[in-house]
Amino acid sequence: MPSDEFIVTPWEVKGHVDYNKLIALFGTQPIDEAILARFKKLTGSIPMMLRRQVFFSHRDLNWILDQYEAGEKFALYTGRGPSGQTHLGHLMPWMFTKYLQDAFGAELYFQMTDDEKFLQKDELSAYATRGFSYDNCLDLIALGFDPKKTRIFLDTEYVRTLYPIALEVAKRVTFSAARAVFGFETSTNIGMVFFTSMQSAPAFLPTILAGHNVPVLIPCAIDQDPHFRITRDVAQKMGYYKPALVFSRFFPSLLGLDKMSASLPETSIFTTDTPEEAKKKIANAFTGGRTTVKEQQELGGVPDICAVYQYSFYLFEKDDRRALELRQECLQGVRACGECKKELAAKVVQFLKSHQIARERARDHIEDFIIRDCSD
Amino acid sequence: MPSDEFIVTPWEVKGHVDYNKLIALFGTQPIDEAILARFKKLTGSIPMMLRRQVFFSHRDLNWILDQYEAGEKFALYTGRGPSGQTHLGHLMPWMFTKYLQDAFGAELYFQMTDDEKFLQKDELSAYATRGFSYDNCLDLIALGFDPKKTRIFLDTEYVRTLYPIALEVAKRVTFSAARAVFGFETSTNIGMVFFTSMQSAPAFLPTILAGHNVPVLIPCAIDQDPHFRITRDVAQKMGYYKPALVFSRFFPSLLGLDKMSASLPETSIFTTDTPEEAKKKIANAFTGGRTTVKEQQELGGVPDICAVYQYSFYLFEKDDRRALELRQECLQGVRACGECKKELAAKVVQFLKSHQIARERARDHIEDFIIRDCSD
Repeated sequence: MPSDEFIVTPWEVKGHVDYNKLIALFGTQPIDEAILARFKKLTGSIPMMLRRQVFFSHRDLNWILDQYEAGEKFALYTGRGPSGQTHLGHLMPWMFTKYLQDAFGAELYFQMTDDEKFLQKDELSAYATRGFSYDNCLDLIALGFDPKKTRIFLDTEYVRTLYPIALEVAKRVTFSAARAVFGFETSTNIGMVFFTSMQSAPAFLPTILAGHNVPVLIPCAIDQDPHFRITRDVAQKMGYYKPALVFSRFFPSLLGLDKMSASLPETSIFTTDTPEEAKKKIANAFTGGRTTVKEQQELGGVPDICAVYQYSFYLFEKDDRRALELRQECLQGVRACGECKKELAAKVVQFLKSHQIARERARDHIEDFIIRDCSD
Repeated sequence: MPSDEFIVTPWEVKGHVDYNKLIALFGTQPIDEAILARFKKLTGSIPMMLRRQVFFSHRDLNWILDQYEAGEKFALYTGRGPSGQTHLGHLMPWMFTKYLQDAFGAELYFQMTDDEKFLQKDELSAYATRGFSYDNCLDLIALGFDPKKTRIFLDTEYVRTLYPIALEVAKRVTFSAARAVFGFETSTNIGMVFFTSMQSAPAFLPTILAGHNVPVLIPCAIDQDPHFRITRDVAQKMGYYKPALVFSRFFPSLLGLDKMSASLPETSIFTTDTPEEAKKKIANAFTGGRTTVKEQQELGGVPDICAVYQYSFYLFEKDDRRALELRQECLQGVRACGECKKELAAKVVQFLKSHQIARERARDHIEDFIIRDCSD
């Protein structure tokens, strides 16, 4: 793979992702000033992740806002592939989803694709993916979602509801269409070939439960778009609304790769990391700093490739003016990497402490959020 | 397709099937004298369908009988693709299954693959395949299965139990392996690619429910073997017993084709046919008779291609001596087709009358047989 190339599929993100190219490649829309203005008008403000283009692209977001303005509430749908513990990269789109729930009074359907991760990962048992599902729930609940408006389900526990919808999808997707979208290999197992039907199903769940068409907005990282291209194709054939989507960038790796990876612990800060672990990871993080203090002062740093700066920009520095200052000071060489790391570490540790308290409290509330076909 | 060729897959049977070739092609075993002797020894008699080679082939049937002799009971598993009403061709293997349940005290797990038929047939809705499932149940129950030892389930209603097992299967079956077995086309939908996992699942259900390995015997028409070749491959990888199989021939079409087809009503006698309908179909049946009475007397008839003779031989003439006499009289030209048709019609009408009474009674007992993940 040449250095200017990249791969983005639901199961693999490699190389340095050019988000403008990705918009052109996937045929999605950029989030433009007009959309920001609509958020301002409808909710009173523009959320940080939209202002900063962390959520940078969409499909049919204007249509969702049109429907909302016309009095038709939308539901939210997002999810998680429970293959390990939750890290900050997972929390980012959930925080945006929480904002959307609060700002628009939207119900959230949250899918734990324990089936997918079991099928995908040789080393994961069904027991393990179920366990991670319940563990990951705690992080979701800790963010403060409204239990009256939030339904979390594991595919294997809600399959009696989901399977008939998935069958309706699967009947309309040929193997060759799926292969064209996902690039299956001959060694791909037959569960993975089918799985996209299960990921499509919740996009129609609000409509099926309500008995009439309900608009659905899916906030997710852009690597999930291939699934939902299929969902949108099929929606039309089934007479349902196409789900709208709003896409985030990939949360940066602490080691300067392009996406955090739960399988490489040093690239990510997990929600269960101790303050010491978090500090150590940040201390070892890849930065845009120069090799000597002298060079740093003369040439300035490179915040755009700096994991520490990205962490602040994506999540931890809420103040736009201060975020810009950090960037300018870095470019001008008046900031050393050590300062940035120290400031970020303090914020991350503070976040982890309060998140971990909320996460423990969430243990008592799981059953307020989980839905199943039947009680166990 | 040259006239001596034939196709046998779970979804298509075409041409004149050469059962010896099929045994060689599929790599199954013939039912030999030694097996018949074992049935005689273990159950006191040899059932008609084995004596007459209607069930003609197997995989690991000796092993099942070994286990049985060693005191390890086996479970039975068979099923139905509910794409229409039940005809006599469907009843045939169920009757043999009933014999096996009675003779060996075996539990039966009966799968209604309403998912498969929905996926396979463009014209069938999920509502329709569910409806046929419940309708077909009546015929099964009418045969007198023991409600204490028989569990019938629809895939869509028992999917929470089946899906985790199907996932274990699917994870171990590559797309290319499945394509090699089933010959998928690029237009095959992704549900059909996955489906074989759902058909494999019940083969492991007795083991999973019991918590220890339970031998399973699957009586079915030989076109289902491709599914169970996959099941047997995967069983080994999962550390489970491979299911054993006993295979029937295809029940003949009244019009002289090779398999009855529910989509061509004149080829089959349905369990809900009126006496008049049944008589008319038999009157119009394809026979091995000659074009004139003179020719028939001189040359004799050809019972081996005669649908009317096959019906008697497969199901309706229980007396071996009488069945042989019918054959001889036909070959010698001392029987006219009209006689055979009249005698068969009388037996079929008698059967239908009592079956239809039992079928109506079965309506009150469906819930004694059906299992679901949860009550509706």
